[in-house]
Amino acid sequence: MTPAISPARLMRRLTALGEIGALEGGGVCRLALGDADKAGRDWLVAEMERLGLAVFVDAIGNIWGLRAGRGQGAPVMVGSHIDTVATGGLYDGALGVLAGLELIETLNENGIDTEAPVAVAAFTNEEGARFAPDMMGSGVYCGALGRDEMLAVTATDGAGVVGAELDRIGYRGSAAPVVPAAYLELHIEQGPVLEREGLRIGAVTGVQGIHWTEFTVHGQTNHAGTTPMALRRDAGQVAMRIAREADAIAAAFGPPQVATVGVFELSPGLVNVVPETARLTVDLRNTDGNRLNEATRRLTGFAETAAAQAGCTLSTRPLARFAPVGFDAALVGKVEAAARARQMSVRRMPSGAGHDAQMFAPLCPTAMIFVPSEKGLSHNVKEHSDEADCAAGAQMLLDLVCDLAGARI
Amino acid sequence: MTPAISPARLMRRLTALGEIGALEGGGVCRLALGDADKAGRDWLVAEMERLGLAVFVDAIGNIWGLRAGRGQGAPVMVGSHIDTVATGGLYDGALGVLAGLELIETLNENGIDTEAPVAVAAFTNEEGARFAPDMMGSGVYCGALGRDEMLAVTATDGAGVVGAELDRIGYRGSAAPVVPAAYLELHIEQGPVLEREGLRIGAVTGVQGIHWTEFTVHGQTNHAGTTPMALRRDAGQVAMRIAREADAIAAAFGPPQVATVGVFELSPGLVNVVPETARLTVDLRNTDGNRLNEATRRLTGFAETAAAQAGCTLSTRPLARFAPVGFDAALVGKVEAAARARQMSVRRMPSGAGHDAQMFAPLCPTAMIFVPSEKGLSHNVKEHSDEADCAAGAQMLLDLVCDLAGARI
Repeated sequence: MTPAISPARLMRRLTALGEIGALEGGGVCRLALGDADKAGRDWLVAEMERLGLAVFVDAIGNIWGLRAGRGQGAPVMVGSHIDTVATGGLYDGALGVLAGLELIETLNENGIDTEAPVAVAAFTNEEGARFAPDMMGSGVYCGALGRDEMLAVTATDGAGVVGAELDRIGYRGSAAPVVPAAYLELHIEQGPVLEREGLRIGAVTGVQGIHWTEFTVHGQTNHAGTTPMALRRDAGQVAMRIAREADAIAAAFGPPQVATVGVFELSPGLVNVVPETARLTVDLRNTDGNRLNEATRRLTGFAETAAAQAGCTLSTRPLARFAPVGFDAALVGKVEAAARARQMSVRRMPSGAGHDAQMFAPLCPTAMIFVPSEKGLSHNVKEHSDEADCAAGAQMLLDLVCDLAGARI
Repeated sequence: MTPAISPARLMRRLTALGEIGALEGGGVCRLALGDADKAGRDWLVAEMERLGLAVFVDAIGNIWGLRAGRGQGAPVMVGSHIDTVATGGLYDGALGVLAGLELIETLNENGIDTEAPVAVAAFTNEEGARFAPDMMGSGVYCGALGRDEMLAVTATDGAGVVGAELDRIGYRGSAAPVVPAAYLELHIEQGPVLEREGLRIGAVTGVQGIHWTEFTVHGQTNHAGTTPMALRRDAGQVAMRIAREADAIAAAFGPPQVATVGVFELSPGLVNVVPETARLTVDLRNTDGNRLNEATRRLTGFAETAAAQAGCTLSTRPLARFAPVGFDAALVGKVEAAARARQMSVRRMPSGAGHDAQMFAPLCPTAMIFVPSEKGLSHNVKEHSDEADCAAGAQMLLDLVCDLAGARI
């Protein structure tokens, strides 16, 4: 049996990092490459050094600390991110990184060495809240995103460019990314499923495919009182039909298909004016790439017909097209078995959100461990996960690293 | 036969007034009680004085010019307004007032006197664009709105109070409103019906009743990827259903029922977040007050059910409730007959928009004359009505005033 991690120490680190960029009244704001992110990075690097890790920083600012193994092979890597959204919580990302520090400290204090090196990584700008796209650091690390292109990305609010911000905060490094022997990420679920089912651990089978589509409908603005219904070209009602169809598709396809209309805008947006223009976004997700493509085709076809029927014109813009990612079946099985070995309740489940782990899936055996999120809340200052759940996830991470890295216990 | 008005002179005045507050590239901005409105009022008063009218201004800034009759009875009044929306056209309101000046000048130059006095009026803040409610001046004139309450209204943008603005521009008068013997208003249709049907004159039978209702739906914000459909409380989809139901009600009730969703907002309004809050407005109009009440009841009932089904809470706020106004049947008949007498094509029709005339309907025989709006556009810098149509409307106004005021021709 591997030794036990220290829940109290894990929570102390979560609290300590949560004080950096803390918001009044709770929650945290450490937008990527801002001053609070720099302070969080400085704190993280100091912790890594205190634990005796060799610290590396690459060209996009990813940080990893390496604990040497007996052998010279590729490291087993655990990681996540420490950047947050503008009104984020203390657990999203941070849990995965700080559980990595905790497992290193547990190995250290128990004098356990491993055959393979063990790396703990924090990837730049996972959230995409300040710079698009999200998962930027892990995407560059794994070769899915172009380094120079990402260094040139301007902030969504126009204030700052990735490369210049990295220089400003002192985190443009030169270390060469190393393909790990395996990649493991502990993360809060950010959804309600584990809590609803009273389970402690999710063995994540993969990440849903994501299609974001923006529809813009152009009709004709008219006076709400003087224009008979038959003479209208109401962009708003066409957009409402598209939004309702997205919901109907999710109902017709059934789980795991989900559909969300998060943005919906009318112009000119006056009580007594028939809208001239309507813009909405539809977020469709499914673990089955074919079904997801089918959902998107059905929606865009419906939108074209609905616009034409109302005498409106439509422009359809794909904002994101991510195919589903399947994690390594053997490694997912190990996660499940490791939970059972500790008498922790567990289920297999897909991830509805994107994570750094998905970038590693094409490169090496990859898996994720989920722990419950209270009320499913995340990207929210009220985000919370119980200490017992966080500790359980960290223990799983240690157990699996010991297995994968060949710990001598 | 009454003499012919001068189309060229009418158009010169429309152009002259349109230069006051003119917008670059076309259209005009004479928001009520602003500097451009003051300049328009000064110009109007000068024109009235040049035509020999006695000019009166009341406590809310309504202006009317009186041409004496042979008798001492109540005047026949024609009127409308010269304030505009922020991006208005040259015809909305101005046509009715300037056609009044034109008919006075035609009476003057033909030496025609009338038994009853003839008044030409311009009412304060018909548009309601800067100060709510709309039809403020005519509402106070006719006793439907409280004078002191209206004088205390603050601008919708917070900049200015009605009474202080009247003082500032020098249009807080003291004349006592006089109940007219009859009230006639020439106005552009602001809708597409006359143009579509190739008609010149609308004999307006009344003003539709108007119900504005705001619905605010509160649900729960959630991550678009991690929250299964069955666990959502999506405020946005509830709001979409309410919006679609408004459309369904208009279809089920048939003309003249109309329904418009002009405002629709989601919060937080992010692509990958299930909306927590949605707000929409529904504008329902019908000439039949009972049917209108029925439409509003059906919609609010539907909204309550839809919110409850989705586990959301709903707040419903009536923003406006105006009962339909019927114009004087005999006077509407006179409008129709006057058009036929001039071989002008004519149809009876309701007004979909509110007008100063509706304030007079309870006090005296009241009617309106509509002329076509190109493409139905109004409250738009591209608002346009043909010279021939404007002139036809002004001629009708003169013909009817000569009839009603007892002209000696």
